[in-house]
Amino acid sequence: MKATLLTIGDELLIGQVVNTNAAWLGEQLNGLGVEVVRAVSLGDDETAIRHELEQALAASDLVILTGGLGPTRDDITREVVAGYFGVPLHLDPQILENIRERFRRRGRVMAAINERVALVPEGFEPLANPVGSAPGLWRVEEGGGRKRIVVLVPGVPRELKAIYHEEIVPRLRDQESLRVILHRTLLTAGIGESNLQERIGDLSDYLGLELRLASLPSADSVRLRLTATGTDRAALEAALERLEAHLRERIGPYLYGTGDDTLEAALGRMLAERGLTIAVAESCTGGLVLHRLTNTSGSSAYVVGGVVAYSNDVKMSALGVEEEALAQHGAVSEVVARQMARGVCKHLGADVGISTTGVAGPTGGTPEKPVGTVWIGYADARGDFAQFNRFGKDRAMNKTRSATAALDLARRQIMES
Amino acid sequence: MKATLLTIGDELLIGQVVNTNAAWLGEQLNGLGVEVVRAVSLGDDETAIRHELEQALAASDLVILTGGLGPTRDDITREVVAGYFGVPLHLDPQILENIRERFRRRGRVMAAINERVALVPEGFEPLANPVGSAPGLWRVEEGGGRKRIVVLVPGVPRELKAIYHEEIVPRLRDQESLRVILHRTLLTAGIGESNLQERIGDLSDYLGLELRLASLPSADSVRLRLTATGTDRAALEAALERLEAHLRERIGPYLYGTGDDTLEAALGRMLAERGLTIAVAESCTGGLVLHRLTNTSGSSAYVVGGVVAYSNDVKMSALGVEEEALAQHGAVSEVVARQMARGVCKHLGADVGISTTGVAGPTGGTPEKPVGTVWIGYADARGDFAQFNRFGKDRAMNKTRSATAALDLARRQIMES
Repeated sequence: MKATLLTIGDELLIGQVVNTNAAWLGEQLNGLGVEVVRAVSLGDDETAIRHELEQALAASDLVILTGGLGPTRDDITREVVAGYFGVPLHLDPQILENIRERFRRRGRVMAAINERVALVPEGFEPLANPVGSAPGLWRVEEGGGRKRIVVLVPGVPRELKAIYHEEIVPRLRDQESLRVILHRTLLTAGIGESNLQERIGDLSDYLGLELRLASLPSADSVRLRLTATGTDRAALEAALERLEAHLRERIGPYLYGTGDDTLEAALGRMLAERGLTIAVAESCTGGLVLHRLTNTSGSSAYVVGGVVAYSNDVKMSALGVEEEALAQHGAVSEVVARQMARGVCKHLGADVGISTTGVAGPTGGTPEKPVGTVWIGYADARGDFAQFNRFGKDRAMNKTRSATAALDLARRQIMES
Repeated sequence: MKATLLTIGDELLIGQVVNTNAAWLGEQLNGLGVEVVRAVSLGDDETAIRHELEQALAASDLVILTGGLGPTRDDITREVVAGYFGVPLHLDPQILENIRERFRRRGRVMAAINERVALVPEGFEPLANPVGSAPGLWRVEEGGGRKRIVVLVPGVPRELKAIYHEEIVPRLRDQESLRVILHRTLLTAGIGESNLQERIGDLSDYLGLELRLASLPSADSVRLRLTATGTDRAALEAALERLEAHLRERIGPYLYGTGDDTLEAALGRMLAERGLTIAVAESCTGGLVLHRLTNTSGSSAYVVGGVVAYSNDVKMSALGVEEEALAQHGAVSEVVARQMARGVCKHLGADVGISTTGVAGPTGGTPEKPVGTVWIGYADARGDFAQFNRFGKDRAMNKTRSATAALDLARRQIMES
């Protein structure tokens, strides 16, 4: 089954909203064995929507349109699709009542414009929206020996996700059997893309028509995606297994996880397995390390907490950094990074402490310590040390790369302990 | 000038990478008066790339292809485009030398696979890449009374951005005069989409063919986008001005900024103007409030720092929360939120303190305090208080909404002070 995604909304084309829906749907459909062949973003424009819908129906078995189903004037998807199929819209009293009930529960009165959301084009089945007002819409077209499915879903990500899981997936599974596409993703940190490729070496014994490898670099890590496509699930799984084992051996300590794993979750598992707690002292990362660590559910078992010490006063009073160290070496220094890591361990009562201190930019750089200079500190029962990094000029990127470096340093230290 | 964006890479279709490039390019081109009419994501597949390129060239004046220019096997864009135009590829010695030099500067030897990146299709002009290896490529096609521009750019966001600003923009400006499209965006927090629409009321006196309004809700805020399209820049600006003034009056205190502004930057400006400093005590947000506050460059002038107090011990030792308050009311309570806000002010020596304590989920909820229960505390010289919130079941969303609620509470308190 081949699918086309049409994401609708001027905001996507002028860049006010990043199209996370297409990525999310792509991943989900792929897992079901549905191959997404195109994802098109287009504006709130009748002609464009009609043109793309026609093309998508000609080239794919499943067309999912997201966005433009809300109550406001710029939401035209429902009307345009009804027009395309030449069917009238009927007000669905059950949906209308559900919407009224949603407003009542929150103690609010439904504004009249919300009634539009209860309009259903003839021949479409409404898909219940458990977390919002606008229902999804589902239509199966048969004719010319082909079956084509058209689905409309609201563009609000949590509504899209709820409707997808609860309404769309069961209906797709009821359709004819789906082809097998398997993916695995290996996640690495602390190594650049071309060095990683060199380390991996030649894979011609492994790769072929059914098996592909792609490397996906981002600012602070490289992911390797293994894809197997075919019909024999068991054979594909065995081939993936063999390739993954080979890659794991080659990549060694740079590999921190697979799939949707995160560096912070990998670190968290290591801490939890060893019964260790962690505390973080952040200067240049300003809370990002702690934010990432606490994104993992269950992190309260090993994250004691931390201190964001932007001022030197806080570095001294809350972390016990010595005034002399600050005066002699400056806040961005090996000594201060070590004292911060040690201090946060001691003051907050944790087994492991990590710290960041650097010049995030864009201002604050000096010839000796330019923007991007970052020290990462580490402390545990065995001792403490700090690692030097020189990143780039961009503030957000420097925060991200420093946080990743701190999390990865802790991961490797604990792995070796 | 109409543009089509083709973003290339299997990772986009299977959802491993979110397409931020299309959003970014859309915004940039729009600012130049170039209208993006479609943005298509497609796989690393020769037939698909050729087909989309043909269609894009027929429908638009500018086609930008991003992705697939790297050194690895799955990078095929350069070769496919050369094949489409029927031109050979030549190794460019200057580009090759630049790449070698990049590797030398980092003390590394260039892997042989990187040579591919120096191949230039005949008739294409290389666009220097100041931050990476692969150059962009530029071609102007004339024929049939039309001029069409084809541009290839690497998919790595920082390389794309650098090449766009330094090489593509000047070349686009050299092309024929561009049509006027003006945007303004008004940013609101603390009010839902339909309540905001009711508050704004009827706009038929303002809106028309040249002037449009779109409302863009996200988890924790609603943005209003005003768009004016036409030829007379002065008249469009005056119309936008008039509409914006009307909206500002209607929206009142819910409006926190315009354009690319952020709530944290708006709060930061207020603090800086009044010479106030802020400290944050975070439990359920786990560092996110501090991370957001310190994303703004120059935030060290008003952010003293903060404490992430995940454990009760840290709430007591680092923030002075009373053991009795924790025992009697629990960590998620009005009393503890107030003591945290007051305590972080006092311990870190700030003028304003904000705090968060809640059940982020997915576990840890009780019938009395279900997942999503969050108290936001506020303290300044005038006193302290806490605000109750009940958000949803999703951990990441609860962190985001709690952080926004805390930042917005501080913004409104300081605005009124």
